[in-house]
Amino acid sequence: MTQTTTLTTTPDAALTQMRAAPPLVHCITNYVAMNIAANVLLAAGASPAMLHTPEESRDFAAIAGALTINFGTLSPNWVAGMHAAIDGATGAGRPWVFDPVAHYASPWRGGIARDLLARNPTILRGNASEIMALAGFETASRGPDAADSVAAAEDAARSLATAQSCIVAVTGAVDFVTDGTRAVRVHGGDPMMARITAMGCSLTTLTGAYAATLPDPFDATVAALAHFAAAGNVAAGAPGPASFQTLFVDALYTATPDSLAAIPVTAA
Amino acid sequence: MTQTTTLTTTPDAALTQMRAAPPLVHCITNYVAMNIAANVLLAAGASPAMLHTPEESRDFAAIAGALTINFGTLSPNWVAGMHAAIDGATGAGRPWVFDPVAHYASPWRGGIARDLLARNPTILRGNASEIMALAGFETASRGPDAADSVAAAEDAARSLATAQSCIVAVTGAVDFVTDGTRAVRVHGGDPMMARITAMGCSLTTLTGAYAATLPDPFDATVAALAHFAAAGNVAAGAPGPASFQTLFVDALYTATPDSLAAIPVTAA
Amino acid sequence: MTQTTTLTTTPDAALTQMRAAPPLVHCITNYVAMNIAANVLLAAGASPAMLHTPEESRDFAAIAGALTINFGTLSPNWVAGMHAAIDGATGAGRPWVFDPVAHYASPWRGGIARDLLARNPTILRGNASEIMALAGFETASRGPDAADSVAAAEDAARSLATAQSCIVAVTGAVDFVTDGTRAVRVHGGDPMMARITAMGCSLTTLTGAYAATLPDPFDATVAALAHFAAAGNVAAGAPGPASFQTLFVDALYTATPDSLAAIPVTAA
Repeated sequence: MTQTTTLTTTPDAALTQMRAAPPLVHCITNYVAMNIAANVLLAAGASPAMLHTPEESRDFAAIAGALTINFGTLSPNWVAGMHAAIDGATGAGRPWVFDPVAHYASPWRGGIARDLLARNPTILRGNASEIMALAGFETASRGPDAADSVAAAEDAARSLATAQSCIVAVTGAVDFVTDGTRAVRVHGGDPMMARITAMGCSLTTLTGAYAATLPDPFDATVAALAHFAAAGNVAAGAPGPASFQTLFVDALYTATPDSLAAIPVTAA
Repeated sequence: MTQTTTLTTTPDAALTQMRAAPPLVHCITNYVAMNIAANVLLAAGASPAMLHTPEESRDFAAIAGALTINFGTLSPNWVAGMHAAIDGATGAGRPWVFDPVAHYASPWRGGIARDLLARNPTILRGNASEIMALAGFETASRGPDAADSVAAAEDAARSLATAQSCIVAVTGAVDFVTDGTRAVRVHGGDPMMARITAMGCSLTTLTGAYAATLPDPFDATVAALAHFAAAGNVAAGAPGPASFQTLFVDALYTATPDSLAAIPVTAA
Repeated sequence: MTQTTTLTTTPDAALTQMRAAPPLVHCITNYVAMNIAANVLLAAGASPAMLHTPEESRDFAAIAGALTINFGTLSPNWVAGMHAAIDGATGAGRPWVFDPVAHYASPWRGGIARDLLARNPTILRGNASEIMALAGFETASRGPDAADSVAAAEDAARSLATAQSCIVAVTGAVDFVTDGTRAVRVHGGDPMMARITAMGCSLTTLTGAYAATLPDPFDATVAALAHFAAAGNVAAGAPGPASFQTLFVDALYTATPDSLAAIPVTAA
């Protein structure tokens, strides 16, 4: 048995449930990630919907199964749409996932990250540098690529999870997930994933798909990370990042409960 | 002979004509579809141009061969650009194609769909749920993915085509095209196409390329669907959606008049 | 020896330097190019950051290694972000690269191209039609695809380089680079590259990566073109544009100093 007993719903069972009733996932994500994130959701078994403008994001968030917000290519109009969508999701009791891409890239972006965090995301997902900086730690990173190890971000993740009462996932070579009390590491994937843009953004939307499916967002986060890790294991060995991406998305589609059950999820 | 005699220009002849004088296609499409739609047009043999802002969309629509409008990731500024582009295309006698992605996703989006429809598109393309809802029928779908069969949408398509004096194409497992009087079904493609984002959006832009080439928009629509179906047949059997997409776009490029002539187009 | 002695830093040495200290490249590019441009930079060895809004583009341009501006899917808000970013880059002494996609597509776009050109880009990259039209020559092109040969644009490139005191690169079957005095041709690549969208846009961002690395923007431009040409040579023979793109991005990743040293760079 490679998976911790901390989980109520294991990744294999989560995959089966998600595909049995494909969740409609409302994604507000950046221009870079739009296409690959939608393809990741469709390959995995979910149904993506990308719409962002405040004229409709509140209404739609209330009927979707979950909302995911990634603010990579941010502008003021999009912030208004994010606020409306969060109101819609929260009012309807839907979970929402926040991905604060490179929030330290500018003072303006940092302020918006803090404001969105204060709106109580169900799940917060970032790379080590993003999570560390959000918890007030120093980071050497200035752009979307991480400059810190996941291990170095574990304390930051625990403190953020406790302070915000949310799930925090730090993704990288070995992923770390915590709700402040429980904590696990998810093992798998491949270093080539850091050479493909919007992989983290896509993982955020897949986390939304599982959050729409399972009652416990901790289990949902682990299931999404296990699904990604299983696909990354299949694609490992590709000669370059573009062929890796093709194999990876195909492997999200061909993933089985058995392949997710084989991903080590260890207590941390 | 697998193709109905309803057509004046058959798909094989249409392909030859389109490639002999690659049409410049003005595409206003959503952020998810931008890249794949442009690649679909280039692979097929046309020349895409993506620009949307009202400061230039009227001018450019008047010099392009056709205009296509897909409102997936809509916002108010884009609506203004769509209006200007439609004015430019209409004023210059150019055809335009409308793709009302998930128009039932919010009341705001529904209102814009009705407004655009009232501006007299030459061709309307959607999935079964989109066409049914636009004709006032009920649909279970709430997002971009269809929840109805093409067969269930045929009556809606005929009534819309008659009411709007336009071509209506309902695309899915078997496509249906009608101008209210004439009607055909186009057979081919593969179920994997529903697992790849923006395939319908890309088909809309290819319809524009053929509409820029042929005098009869009914023939143009059938040619675009046959080109897509032929490529889908080639890609069938791919292990997953990402490798399918690669094979599919390559097959749009390698498609020949013979491969389009082999697509069954039957009277309906 | 296939490479001219005009260069202080040859492409092979430039590649080694760029990968040894991956530059953070601030890209303001169009919606079509966003994903592929980011993947091109990551595969090549650089670190892309896509952000555009004036609230943060000035701050970020000052901390990135270089700025690249491509105005494909332009709108007024983005112009403001471009202005702020150029101010930030210029103020911090960072190079910036301008890619005036289809600037002749509308009078409005043409005015913005002239305004941006007046802000003194370090490097100007375009296809033959774009460079000719910017220098006041006639072109038959009306959209993003070139209708002229690179050879026909060499005089225009020389006169623009002299008038603007910048590097001008005209890319196509054989690329031409000049600073008004020095001039070289870079040989390689494959005609299939014209059937893939946003290849030029991606090349612009890669030029930024080398401009952030080398002191001489002439050498940087040649290095980027040689890196692209080497990858194009590897991908040549693919059955269609989508498989070509996969091979191409993989080849940017697997490119070695030796493969760049093998690209002919001849005096012009």
